[in-house]
Amino acid sequence: MIARLAVVGVGLLGGSVALAARARGVAREIVGVGRDRARLEAPLRAGAVDRVTTDLEAGVRDADVVVLAATVLANERLLAEAWPALSPTALVTDVGSTKRGIAETADRLAATTPRTFVGSHPMAGSEKSGYDVARADLFDGATVIVTPTDACAPHAVKSVTALWEALGARVSVLDPAAHDRVVAAISHLPHVAAWALMDAVARFEPGALAFAARGFKDTTRIAASDPAMWTDILLDNRDAVLASVRTLRTAVEDFERLVAGGDASTIAAALARLKAQREAVA
Amino acid sequence: MIARLAVVGVGLLGGSVALAARARGVAREIVGVGRDRARLEAPLRAGAVDRVTTDLEAGVRDADVVVLAATVLANERLLAEAWPALSPTALVTDVGSTKRGIAETADRLAATTPRTFVGSHPMAGSEKSGYDVARADLFDGATVIVTPTDACAPHAVKSVTALWEALGARVSVLDPAAHDRVVAAISHLPHVAAWALMDAVARFEPGALAFAARGFKDTTRIAASDPAMWTDILLDNRDAVLASVRTLRTAVEDFERLVAGGDASTIAAALARLKAQREAVA
Repeated sequence: MIARLAVVGVGLLGGSVALAARARGVAREIVGVGRDRARLEAPLRAGAVDRVTTDLEAGVRDADVVVLAATVLANERLLAEAWPALSPTALVTDVGSTKRGIAETADRLAATTPRTFVGSHPMAGSEKSGYDVARADLFDGATVIVTPTDACAPHAVKSVTALWEALGARVSVLDPAAHDRVVAAISHLPHVAAWALMDAVARFEPGALAFAARGFKDTTRIAASDPAMWTDILLDNRDAVLASVRTLRTAVEDFERLVAGGDASTIAAALARLKAQREAVA
Repeated sequence: MIARLAVVGVGLLGGSVALAARARGVAREIVGVGRDRARLEAPLRAGAVDRVTTDLEAGVRDADVVVLAATVLANERLLAEAWPALSPTALVTDVGSTKRGIAETADRLAATTPRTFVGSHPMAGSEKSGYDVARADLFDGATVIVTPTDACAPHAVKSVTALWEALGARVSVLDPAAHDRVVAAISHLPHVAAWALMDAVARFEPGALAFAARGFKDTTRIAASDPAMWTDILLDNRDAVLASVRTLRTAVEDFERLVAGGDASTIAAALARLKAQREAVA
């Protein structure tokens, strides 16, 4: 049981942390921290949080656990701002989609003022955002990647793992660089594919959009993801994203060559291989 | 009420035509035609069809309506084979995803032996195939694009429209070339994007597939589509598919440049534009 949990940024992920912590009795008191007082009304009225503040230092002071849940570059700034106000025994984590940047920020801050940060990435996002779509069961069965650096104490990794498990998730551990390459492939690149496809259809034959069926809709669903959140992710993970996008470009070029070649058995073999790869995904 | 309906190829789409026709009392007798007798057992036992045959000519003889539901290049061959056995008053249609090839075949056949063919494309496919996934309600609310050529009699277009409306669908009319360009964009290109993404992730970071969540899964769902069906589609619509793939390649290159540029407000504006385009899709 956490005596006081502070959630900084009460949107889809932060709101779901608060709702899940409340529903599962994980925290006695939950404090919601945000820039915009009006946006904190809904979680306060719903009882997801016990009190709210727009003062970051006041919000995190005396908290036992702090969860940063703004966009990834904002989380790095918020971590630096909150650091002097943190209790020496506090555990800080985040829910951002990139991990090298915030891990470096934490290691740099800890070098002068020792505090405990271990990054987290719940693989439970959505193209929708905001507290309105937060859910107490968002993390049920979801994977959370926890990303300690060499500087993280083992007990801190255990604590953040226990937190996510208490909220219903399964935890995997990766170092921040490995994490950022993995999510470039499995999360950021699908977004790029969806954006590029949306863009290509609108350029090639905009009238075709009137005939969109399930295939197009599923393939482009995440093209409607939050622009501010994703601008931060693309910038913070730029090198890994660019490397993965180059691989996508090569794959598109290879497919173009395959179709241009016009050989039925070669095409069928490639499609059978890709079908098998897709079906092997759990 | 159709006295005798012949369905050639009793898989997802053909089986669903039979089931929908039965459920809605659209046909008195339904004949299932296929190459493989064993595969016709399930629809026969389920009462989706009244009798089955592997003899195409026998299957279509005296049928009032014939629906070709094999892969698109097979449909073109089947149309030519069935043509001499068709009743002069029969209406023939198909459910293929490409329309220029079969329309040209029909116009060529009709030049010597006048019979009535009007192409159809129900936008109600799936990455799954076979009679096991056929459903009586597959066409409920789905769009069917009907693709008459200049040679088609208006009453034939009316009849095929009435058929699909009786099975629960909405009908749009496009000429075969316009249809093939529209579906290259809204259906074939999403498949190429899904295949290329599947391929790229497996090349870039195969270990990342263990972390696949809803975004990757939805974006690549149709990468598991039937290889034989899609080989035919890619070959039959090769020029339009290649033109659309070149647009996708350009869109990926543009996105790569956008991220490489590293300007937050330019990236955010592009993502906001793509989000709005996606959200405008009904």
